[in-house]
Amino acid sequence: MKLHIMGCHAATPSMKGHPTSQILEIRDHIFLIDCGEGTQVQLRRHKVKFSRINHIFISHLHGDHFFGLPGLISTFQLLGREKELHVYGPERIKEVILLLLRVGNSWTGFQLVFHELTSAISEVIFEDEKVKVSTIPLKHRVYTNGFLFEEKPKERGLNMEAVGRYKVDKAYFKNIKKGKDALSHKGENIPNKDLTFDPPVPKTYAYCSDTAYDETKISWISGADILYHEATFLSTEASLASKTGHSTAKEAALIARLAGVKKLILGHFSTRYKDKNLFLKEAQPVFPSTELAEDGKVFEL
Amino acid sequence: MKLHIMGCHAATPSMKGHPTSQILEIRDHIFLIDCGEGTQVQLRRHKVKFSRINHIFISHLHGDHFFGLPGLISTFQLLGREKELHVYGPERIKEVILLLLRVGNSWTGFQLVFHELTSAISEVIFEDEKVKVSTIPLKHRVYTNGFLFEEKPKERGLNMEAVGRYKVDKAYFKNIKKGKDALSHKGENIPNKDLTFDPPVPKTYAYCSDTAYDETKISWISGADILYHEATFLSTEASLASKTGHSTAKEAALIARLAGVKKLILGHFSTRYKDKNLFLKEAQPVFPSTELAEDGKVFEL
Repeated sequence: MKLHIMGCHAATPSMKGHPTSQILEIRDHIFLIDCGEGTQVQLRRHKVKFSRINHIFISHLHGDHFFGLPGLISTFQLLGREKELHVYGPERIKEVILLLLRVGNSWTGFQLVFHELTSAISEVIFEDEKVKVSTIPLKHRVYTNGFLFEEKPKERGLNMEAVGRYKVDKAYFKNIKKGKDALSHKGENIPNKDLTFDPPVPKTYAYCSDTAYDETKISWISGADILYHEATFLSTEASLASKTGHSTAKEAALIARLAGVKKLILGHFSTRYKDKNLFLKEAQPVFPSTELAEDGKVFEL
Repeated sequence: MKLHIMGCHAATPSMKGHPTSQILEIRDHIFLIDCGEGTQVQLRRHKVKFSRINHIFISHLHGDHFFGLPGLISTFQLLGREKELHVYGPERIKEVILLLLRVGNSWTGFQLVFHELTSAISEVIFEDEKVKVSTIPLKHRVYTNGFLFEEKPKERGLNMEAVGRYKVDKAYFKNIKKGKDALSHKGENIPNKDLTFDPPVPKTYAYCSDTAYDETKISWISGADILYHEATFLSTEASLASKTGHSTAKEAALIARLAGVKKLILGHFSTRYKDKNLFLKEAQPVFPSTELAEDGKVFEL
């Protein structure tokens, strides 16, 4: 799993900081999470293949999280895209995109599939044999969801040396990988653990932006390998954070500690702070395993 | 008058070329013409004062000419703007902007005044004592207008030396600047030309993008000091130009010649051409006084 930050700044695009968008590479999927203005240029700058993006997850309908989406969809059309594109986001996202296409007398030659979200509790919005994506309802000024990306367990790895030694017939391989025992050519039972390796532990990534401090989300993100949590402000602006439905670095760290995640990444920084290390200094005493997002930075799991 | 190109490329934003937007400084006004995605970053890069932009002219509702507008309006709001903002553009531009604000539960603390355009013939859409702006109906895939910006004649300049020599009373000054003759202290008539300098000749700027080759616009742009005309393609792609409602460099030069403008600036280049000088090579034999637009370039009149 690889998380590539395209932009991690609050408010409006500038030369120095791009608004929110991220690319999550997870089990052959390239998921785009949020799409602030200028995201398509950031994708090009960081050499993300446009044709591999098939699923876009939009947290909420504030400009710094989705004003880049209409342009990206136009570009897909211009590039001759034929594959379906799935867009997950709040109710009315379809109305907005279709209106923008309609007033320009434009259309898409590919199918644009909207998954409009309205639930106030977590729901599974994407699932295949490798990955599951659920919403994390967040508390912001408008209807907002974070997203929990979970790898599914891989099959057990076949120990070819052991399989050869016990002369296990190929016909058993499929079941062995699923955890079943097998019979040797002599008819003896061979426990699965003697024939297989443990698969890699599945990883989870929790994306929480934008959100006020809110402990109700802890049950959904508990134990995540990485939690990206917004920290628009420092504690000196705690009342402004609360008023605008945002969090401070300390509040993000508290959520990370209460949820017992393995690593916290802070982002969505207000441009008022010149020194981003202040966010780290505020969060680390509460949750030591904290890092700062940065436009272009890659986090590997 | 000063024309500052923010972006002059067709299609989608990229690291190398920004979509259409321009700043026209004309008699104390700072007019924004078109607003492709990323325009607000370009405005910052080129140090344009956001607070001085009070009038935005949108030619048509294709993304590369207006997908930067919602973000710019959000930024005005974030910067605490209080002054009215006037937006001139095709019908439904108001519906689009208001929907984008509404789904984000956002509003503007300043008055947003929409001037929706529907006329198929040229009309005056802005006028004060210094400047007049009219539409130039263009032929494109959707309803599109170019814009003609005309300075109004300034008053005649008072020749203070002559006025002193003839001992002309101050009470006459206002009328002298308007071209009237005056009386000396001896009661002799003094012709206006002996008391004044010619004012600077008023300039006109014609913006034509996007448009197919179309001679009907010539009457409106005739004699302009500068004509900005789109040249998305070279003549090798003439049929594609015609099919998509665009022009070739040669066609733009023909329009400039037929309209008898003083200078032609080509822009809206398709990204398919690596060497922009090919546009110049194609246009100059038809219309020698041709220059190429370039992101960030300033043209002074």
